[in-house]
Amino acid sequence: MATAVSPLAVPLPVLPPLAGVRLGATAAGIRYKGRTDLVMMELAASTTVAGVFTSSKCPGAPIDWCRDALAGGKARAVVINAGNANVFTGKAGVETTKASAAAAAKLVGCKPKQVFLASTGVIGEVLPHDRLTAALPALHAALDPDAWEAAARGIMTTDTFPKAATRTVDIGGTQVRINGIAKGSGMIAPDMATMLCFVFTDAKIPSGLLQDMLKKGVDRSFNCTTVDSDTSTSDTVLLFATGETKHPRVKDDDAAMLKAFSAALADLLLDLALQVARDGEGAQKLIKIAVTGAASTKSAKRIAMTVANSPLVKTAIAGEDANWGRIVMAVGKAGEPADRDKLSIGVGGVWMARDGAVIDGYDETPVVAHMKGKEVDIAIDIGLGKGKATVWTCDLTHGYIDINGSYRS
Amino acid sequence: MATAVSPLAVPLPVLPPLAGVRLGATAAGIRYKGRTDLVMMELAASTTVAGVFTSSKCPGAPIDWCRDALAGGKARAVVINAGNANVFTGKAGVETTKASAAAAAKLVGCKPKQVFLASTGVIGEVLPHDRLTAALPALHAALDPDAWEAAARGIMTTDTFPKAATRTVDIGGTQVRINGIAKGSGMIAPDMATMLCFVFTDAKIPSGLLQDMLKKGVDRSFNCTTVDSDTSTSDTVLLFATGETKHPRVKDDDAAMLKAFSAALADLLLDLALQVARDGEGAQKLIKIAVTGAASTKSAKRIAMTVANSPLVKTAIAGEDANWGRIVMAVGKAGEPADRDKLSIGVGGVWMARDGAVIDGYDETPVVAHMKGKEVDIAIDIGLGKGKATVWTCDLTHGYIDINGSYRS
Repeated sequence: MATAVSPLAVPLPVLPPLAGVRLGATAAGIRYKGRTDLVMMELAASTTVAGVFTSSKCPGAPIDWCRDALAGGKARAVVINAGNANVFTGKAGVETTKASAAAAAKLVGCKPKQVFLASTGVIGEVLPHDRLTAALPALHAALDPDAWEAAARGIMTTDTFPKAATRTVDIGGTQVRINGIAKGSGMIAPDMATMLCFVFTDAKIPSGLLQDMLKKGVDRSFNCTTVDSDTSTSDTVLLFATGETKHPRVKDDDAAMLKAFSAALADLLLDLALQVARDGEGAQKLIKIAVTGAASTKSAKRIAMTVANSPLVKTAIAGEDANWGRIVMAVGKAGEPADRDKLSIGVGGVWMARDGAVIDGYDETPVVAHMKGKEVDIAIDIGLGKGKATVWTCDLTHGYIDINGSYRS
Repeated sequence: MATAVSPLAVPLPVLPPLAGVRLGATAAGIRYKGRTDLVMMELAASTTVAGVFTSSKCPGAPIDWCRDALAGGKARAVVINAGNANVFTGKAGVETTKASAAAAAKLVGCKPKQVFLASTGVIGEVLPHDRLTAALPALHAALDPDAWEAAARGIMTTDTFPKAATRTVDIGGTQVRINGIAKGSGMIAPDMATMLCFVFTDAKIPSGLLQDMLKKGVDRSFNCTTVDSDTSTSDTVLLFATGETKHPRVKDDDAAMLKAFSAALADLLLDLALQVARDGEGAQKLIKIAVTGAASTKSAKRIAMTVANSPLVKTAIAGEDANWGRIVMAVGKAGEPADRDKLSIGVGGVWMARDGAVIDGYDETPVVAHMKGKEVDIAIDIGLGKGKATVWTCDLTHGYIDINGSYRS
C-alpha cells in the first residue's frame, strides 16, 4: 500500500565513496513490482566484520547464517533482499541462504561463509532463491562506489524514507570514514526488531575490537528505541572494516586508540536509530523520554522503555495531551523501584508534577505549545538514586492501525 | 465522549438479592453530568473480606487504604466513585480516603477501617471529598437489596456496557449465592489494571480461606486477560462473605469443604474478566490464545501474554488477517524456551504451520471464515514440554486510538 512520507522524515545525506566498498541495487521481482528489492555490496579482501542480531528465539534463516559466518571474522560480500524475510520457512529457508551465499561467493571469488545475508519482509513464505541468484550476476557487474542512495532505497520495506548517515574521525592522526544505511519502521523494539543496519568503515580494525564497539553502540542507540514493543525475527546490525585506509596500526587490545572512532560510531548508530524511530509506522511525533534519579542505570532504562511502550502514553501524545497521569501509570507498572511520593514529571522542559502531586498552578501554556510540535520531550525523575537513561519512541496513531491492519492484503 | 456499545457486549444478567448486602448508586456530580457516579454497599455485621490489588509501584490512595483495612479482615461498607481515580494526589488524596471512610462509617455505625474504598477515572486531580460525603446520607438512606444493576452501572467509566455475574453453589448441602459486578475497558493487563470487581457471597467463610480462593481465582481470570498491556494504579478485586446463610461451619483450615465454592467463584471471576475483555477499548473481536507444549506453565503463560500484547498480532486480527508470521514473531520475543522448528500454529481449529514451516496447501477457507467472526481462537504448540496456559485479549483498532487520543479533552 502507498503511504505518505513520515512528517518526521529527514533529508537523505549524500554518502561519499568509502575505500573498499562497491555496491548497488536491482529489481529482482521477488515480491515488489516496479522497485528495487535486492542489494549487494562487495568488500575489499582484508575486510573484518562484527554483528549484533535479534534476541528472538525464532530468528530467520539468514540470522543463523550470519551468526555462523561471523565466527570467521572476515567478510567479502553482503546480499540483502526486501519483501520476504525468509523466516519460518523450514529447510527451504536454509537452502535459500546456502544458494544465495554460494552464488554471491562465486561472483566475488570468496568462500560462501564470507558472504553475509539479510532478508526482511513477510514471514513464512518461501523466498524463491532462483530469482535472487538469477539477478545477482548483472547486479554484481554494475557495482559502483557511489551507489549508497540506491542501496539505502533498495533495502526499504514499509519505510517511507531512506536512511543513511556518514561521519569522519581520526585514528592516530589519519582521517577515516564511517558510512551507514538502515531500514525499519515497525517492530523496532528492545533488541532491535525488524531493523537492518549496515555500517562500513575504511579503517583497519581487528574484529574483536569491532565487535565490542558495535555492541556498545547498539546498546545506546537501537536498543534505546521502540516503535511498538514488537521484536523482529530478522534484525541485524553488521559493521564492516575494509582496512583500505592506511593509519597507525590498531593492535587487538588497543581500545584506547579507538576512543574517538568508537564515539563517532555510536553517534552514527544513534543517528540511524532515530531516523528509524522517525519512520515509526504512523508516527506523527518523535518522543524522547529521559529518566533520572532511578535506583540504577538498568532500572532507569527499564522504566523509560515501559513508558515508551505504553499504548496509553503513546495515544495521549498523539492526541497532543500532556497526560502525565498515564506516565505515572507506566512508571508504576515497570516493576522497578519507584516511590509515588518522590516522583516528578515534566514535559517540554516544564515540571508539571513533583513529589507525588501536580504542581499547583504550573504554567500550562508552554506545555500545550510543546505538545503541538513534532518532537515531544518527557522528563521523569524517580527521586531515588543516580540511575539515568534516555530512550526514543513515536506516538501511536490511526496510521499504525491502517498500515498493520492490512499489511498482507 | 459518547462511544457505541461494544459489538462484543453480553446482556446484563439479573442479580437476585444476596442476604446481608444492600446497595445503591447516585449522581454525586464529581466529574460526570447526568449519570450516577457514586456507589455504596452496606454489609451485615459478620462480613469477612479478601482483596487483591494492582502490582503498580504507584498505586492510588484508595489502594493504600484498602490494604490497611484488609488487615482487620472485617467489612461493613464499600464506597466506590467513578470519574476520578484519586491517584497521584499527594496528601489531599489521603485526606479524601479518610474523610470518605469516616462519613460512611458514621452512617453505617462501624469503624472507618471497616469501610472499603475504590476510585477509578482520571489520575492526578484532587477528588473533592465534600461532594462525595455530601451525597452519602441520601444514598445510604435509599440502599436496597435489589439495586445490583444500578451499582453495576454506577461504577462504569469508559465501559460501554455494565458487567455482572451470579452463581449458586452448595456448601455442605446448603445452597449459597455469589454475586459479582465489575468495570473496566482499558489498562486491563497482567495484574489486573484499571479494573474494579466486587464479589459478594452470603456464605460464612474465614477471611484466610477467602483470601486464598480469591488469589487463585484472580490468577486464572483477570490475570489472564489483557487489553493493551497497560496496568492501572487502581485495580481492585474485593470479595465479601456476609455469613448470613446458615450452612455447616467452615473451619479455618477446611479448604476441602469449599472445593465446589472455590470452583464456582473462579468461574464467576472468569466470566467477569471476559466481560471486561469484551469491552476492551475499541474491541471488535475477542481473542483466545491457548498455548500448549511449553517448557512450564509459567513459560506458557508468559508466551501467551506476549502474543496477546503484541500490537502487530492485534492489528492483524483487527484486519481479519490470519497472519501467523506475526504470531511466530511474538513467540520469539517472549524470551521463553522455544524452538522455531518445533513450533505449530493454528487458527480457528485449523493448523496452519507445523514444525517450523507453513503446512503446504492447508485449507484456508475455514480460517478466513473464522477470522471474520467476533471470536478468534489461536492455538500455539511450542512442542517442547507440557506447560499450558490460556489467555484472552481483544483486537487493536481505530476505536482504541479514538478513545485514548482524546480521553481528557
